Amino acid sequence: MFDCGEGVQRQMLIAKTSLNKITKIFISHMHGDHVMGLPGLLQTMALLGRERKLDIYGPAKIREFMQGISRTVQFVLTFQVKIHKIKRAGIVCQEKEYAVHAVRSKHVITSFAYAYVEKSRPGPFYPERAKALGVSEGPLWSKLQKGKEIKLPTGESVRPEDVMGQPRLGRKIVYTGDTRPFRGLKVFAEGADMLIHDSTLGDELAARAEEYGHSTVDQAAESAKEAGVKQLVLTHISQRYEDTSKWLEQARKIFKNAVVAEDFTRIEIPLLEK
Amino acid sequence: MFDCGEGVQRQMLIAKTSLNKITKIFISHMHGDHVMGLPGLLQTMALLGRERKLDIYGPAKIREFMQGISRTVQFVLTFQVKIHKIKRAGIVCQEKEYAVHAVRSKHVITSFAYAYVEKSRPGPFYPERAKALGVSEGPLWSKLQKGKEIKLPTGESVRPEDVMGQPRLGRKIVYTGDTRPFRGLKVFAEGADMLIHDSTLGDELAARAEEYGHSTVDQAAESAKEAGVKQLVLTHISQRYEDTSKWLEQARKIFKNAVVAEDFTRIEIPLLEK
Repeated sequence: MFDCGEGVQRQMLIAKTSLNKITKIFISHMHGDHVMGLPGLLQTMALLGRERKLDIYGPAKIREFMQGISRTVQFVLTFQVKIHKIKRAGIVCQEKEYAVHAVRSKHVITSFAYAYVEKSRPGPFYPERAKALGVSEGPLWSKLQKGKEIKLPTGESVRPEDVMGQPRLGRKIVYTGDTRPFRGLKVFAEGADMLIHDSTLGDELAARAEEYGHSTVDQAAESAKEAGVKQLVLTHISQRYEDTSKWLEQARKIFKNAVVAEDFTRIEIPLLEK
Repeated sequence: MFDCGEGVQRQMLIAKTSLNKITKIFISHMHGDHVMGLPGLLQTMALLGRERKLDIYGPAKIREFMQGISRTVQFVLTFQVKIHKIKRAGIVCQEKEYAVHAVRSKHVITSFAYAYVEKSRPGPFYPERAKALGVSEGPLWSKLQKGKEIKLPTGESVRPEDVMGQPRLGRKIVYTGDTRPFRGLKVFAEGADMLIHDSTLGDELAARAEEYGHSTVDQAAESAKEAGVKQLVLTHISQRYEDTSKWLEQARKIFKNAVVAEDFTRIEIPLLEK
């Protein structure tokens, strides 16, 4: 989960998203609309008897925030919460199947953009190909599946690519949080399958966006173009705009594959082959 | 406003209740579902440019809670917030037209029940009666309106009740917050026009209600009866009960004038004449 504003539980309930599926929460910055849903969410997880550990990542103040809450609001947890203060850009979370990278973005207070980067997965194993090459079922199969070349008793070599399909590339999703356009994003978001970008105001309010540390629709689209991402999702659009369709049109003039995120928008990113 | 749970702003928006009308917030106890809406509410008030002072009343930890938030979540207010820590039972807020009394209730942590008690207001002044008694418009009228007896140049006395209608009695509304039945409520809520009472569980779960510091529907109705209130509002009903109509029936067996509070329930309490 990336960011956790007030009322998140209610929205998850409507979206029928399981609270227990969440194992990691990444907070972009310490503004109420990005963090105030955290205490209530944790409390409800506990009421539901959660036992799985929960990791929370965010700017340094996230720990003091949670400590302040647990000192003053009665807070009984049934599970372990580990808080990870992010100090600098880099990989902040390394898992078997994915990593999460952080980079400093450019809001009015310390803030981070995050990239969720899946690792490549080996392609499918074809037993009939292995058998045809004289590799019988057993330890040699698992060696090949693990990407190792093997030698047959005949002296011949069999390489993984002889018996397996194309590896599936990992997907990359970048979430900027609240930010002005910032230079580091081009490299950070390079080639991402999806860039979820702050797009608070229209270009007519560019000065205001700059002052409050936000991006305009045009700036978000330019950033998407520069980083060569595959899809742009505009988010955090100001409540002053009732109709967002004109922002979509505007963004598409600069970057074609753009959508505007609404509450409960779901977008599937298909698995990729090399 | 009595208690301020997560998502309160959203509900107020739907109910079309002005945020700026609120001048005082009373917190019954420091559980998240009664207090976590406060930081976001204050932040939104500030975004709307509020200038009026806001008073917050609650258990001692309310101050440390707000301080913890303002140290960790960026929090810029455009108005003064005064936090009043409640230490003991009694009048905690004394205004010209009303007072708010607090009493210790009986939850699993320090908690207060509140009574909003309006002061009596003088009845309407009838100029024609004054004139008929020989009191001409001027300083003598305002003396009578302020409840003072006057003397006419003829030596005759005129009393306020000669020229004014019946005084209007103040209304009394009691809100228990989360609580087990507690002895002090009988006197505290005596004769209230409305008692809003914790009614978390049905009587079949009385042991659980006791353990978690809540009341059953029956207990709430008994308390209303004992205190001789005019109306009972059942609230804080557990989410496990989808249909609350049976609780209403049950309560009415014990105390007839009962209703179940739903989101956005509005109940008018008419002005009273002596």
